[in-house]
Amino acid sequence: MEVINRYIAIKTHVDGAPEESDFELKTSPIALSLAPASNEVIVKNLYVSIDPYQINRMKSYSSSQKNSEFAVGIVPGEAIDTYGVGKVVASGNPEFEKGDIVGGLVSWGEYSVIKPGGMLNKLNPMGFPLSYHVGVLAFSGLTAYAGFFEICKPKKGEKVFVSAASGSVGNLVGQYAKLFGCYVVGCAGSQDKVAFLKEKLGFDDAFNYKEAKDLKSTLKRYFPDGIDIYFDNVGGEMQEAAVDNMNINGRVAVCGVISEYTDDEKRAAPSMMDVIYKRIKIQGFLAGDYLNKFADFFTTTCDHLRTGDIKPLEDISEGVESIPSAFISLFRGQNVGKKMVKIAEE
Amino acid sequence: MEVINRYIAIKTHVDGAPEESDFELKTSPIALSLAPASNEVIVKNLYVSIDPYQINRMKSYSSSQKNSEFAVGIVPGEAIDTYGVGKVVASGNPEFEKGDIVGGLVSWGEYSVIKPGGMLNKLNPMGFPLSYHVGVLAFSGLTAYAGFFEICKPKKGEKVFVSAASGSVGNLVGQYAKLFGCYVVGCAGSQDKVAFLKEKLGFDDAFNYKEAKDLKSTLKRYFPDGIDIYFDNVGGEMQEAAVDNMNINGRVAVCGVISEYTDDEKRAAPSMMDVIYKRIKIQGFLAGDYLNKFADFFTTTCDHLRTGDIKPLEDISEGVESIPSAFISLFRGQNVGKKMVKIAEE
Repeated sequence: MEVINRYIAIKTHVDGAPEESDFELKTSPIALSLAPASNEVIVKNLYVSIDPYQINRMKSYSSSQKNSEFAVGIVPGEAIDTYGVGKVVASGNPEFEKGDIVGGLVSWGEYSVIKPGGMLNKLNPMGFPLSYHVGVLAFSGLTAYAGFFEICKPKKGEKVFVSAASGSVGNLVGQYAKLFGCYVVGCAGSQDKVAFLKEKLGFDDAFNYKEAKDLKSTLKRYFPDGIDIYFDNVGGEMQEAAVDNMNINGRVAVCGVISEYTDDEKRAAPSMMDVIYKRIKIQGFLAGDYLNKFADFFTTTCDHLRTGDIKPLEDISEGVESIPSAFISLFRGQNVGKKMVKIAEE
Repeated sequence: MEVINRYIAIKTHVDGAPEESDFELKTSPIALSLAPASNEVIVKNLYVSIDPYQINRMKSYSSSQKNSEFAVGIVPGEAIDTYGVGKVVASGNPEFEKGDIVGGLVSWGEYSVIKPGGMLNKLNPMGFPLSYHVGVLAFSGLTAYAGFFEICKPKKGEKVFVSAASGSVGNLVGQYAKLFGCYVVGCAGSQDKVAFLKEKLGFDDAFNYKEAKDLKSTLKRYFPDGIDIYFDNVGGEMQEAAVDNMNINGRVAVCGVISEYTDDEKRAAPSMMDVIYKRIKIQGFLAGDYLNKFADFFTTTCDHLRTGDIKPLEDISEGVESIPSAFISLFRGQNVGKKMVKIAEE
């Protein structure tokens, strides 16, 4: 059987903030059966992840493209790979059979063809919705877990600041930090998000950074005793203000710098005097380096989800054609929680 | 017996680059004997250390002043404490007696009175000149040793870049790194210094940063395979260029940022995109946190000095009145190696 696969591509490289006009919905016929000798797997995509870092892959040049296997440049006109969850339609690989639910590197489209060696794993939903396996139980969750526990190495009672705290990773960092026994303040870009962080997710406090006249004094008000850990999802001035308010032996986990993604000139220039005298560590990381922690992370997080101690925060658009607007929304601060697109019903 | 103690003070706070007119030579009578009940120690200073970080203590305000016990603000008109080596003239403290050679927190002057609890230790010169105990065998050495081994955690064969490589700490970092089996390139501010690093100290290569048109491409030329470790003594653009040329899992030890000391606006703004994708760690440190490594450092370094594997690099001025010009020379790049002032013959 042959169907028409619809997928999203970029028309040309995207070097600034992304716009609808940068994307196109393309179609190509795809056979839903395999030649007898094939060892590929055909997956019908169900949920695909929408992540800010993809913008770095869309640029005509970014040093990131050569430094991570997950950040290789995207070719205009071609399918864009992404983490996602789907169902096996046909398999030439003995590890998979038709009907298996899988998670792996699929594409921003309706179907994906996974070649041997491609990232693909059978998925046991563990009784949770499949969407959890794209967000809270997948890379967003692992990023928060590894970044907080492995990079920040928290101690109970420490003061934690999280930027983009209602984002896919930030909301989980805050929840893990609260469960661990830290004092947690988040910032976000609207009063609704701020209320949500405080009332639903149990943050000790939160503020709308767009209403802050001066970030340094704002942070001083929220952290009269200083910041021990800053989980940085935004970079820029917020990082500078956090370093300014940091305590001795403070740690900055640099997870994302969305302010730099679309404007390379907009850099953080934290005081290196503070870095020295306060013995601050600023460390970048990628979740992909912590796959050895995945089992710990997964078991712990499943337990917290069952008890209700962690609340998954999802922002789901529907249909392959909504991928561009879903992606663009990330750069406009319009998402609340993990952004993903539901491509099809199981 | 009473003598006139001559010492150096600042006239007012110093908020830019230091000038001769910022300092004054003061005098005050000092008794070289103690009252019977006194538990103080009077030290005749022999060598005093001249360090760039003192500028941060001279400012009217610097956040550094509240974050380290060694960085408390200096009061205009009063004696300025510093590390140094001297000889006990009189002691009310049973741990010391007249004639003891000691190292500790003395002052930029001819005599120091050390109160109980003040930093003071008996010194065994181990057959080395006393000046070694102000530089290579004291805090400059410990800073290089702890910064390189504890913060950078080097592996054999790694590529190491050191800025201000002919400075008190930089020259030792390069020498330790070479002995450890790393590839080492240093930068300095004159052709003479560059030649010295290559010919006398065994650096694999070195360059004059003042002749570099573009720091990023210069570093790319010296490190075609990238930088694994950057030992940062200067901050600013050099740090940005080093991060740009850094390999995955690169480490930046931030030891000093002399470019920021006299101009707070002159900040380093390394690409946080690089920090993330290359998983770079930027870490500030103070040698005072590594006193538990002092015995290791001291024994190892004494051995290297005896075999000639480490060459001490000293820049010694003479006489208390030369302290201001010695200090100012640090900010003009005029020193080669550890700057100190010899106050008196033993």
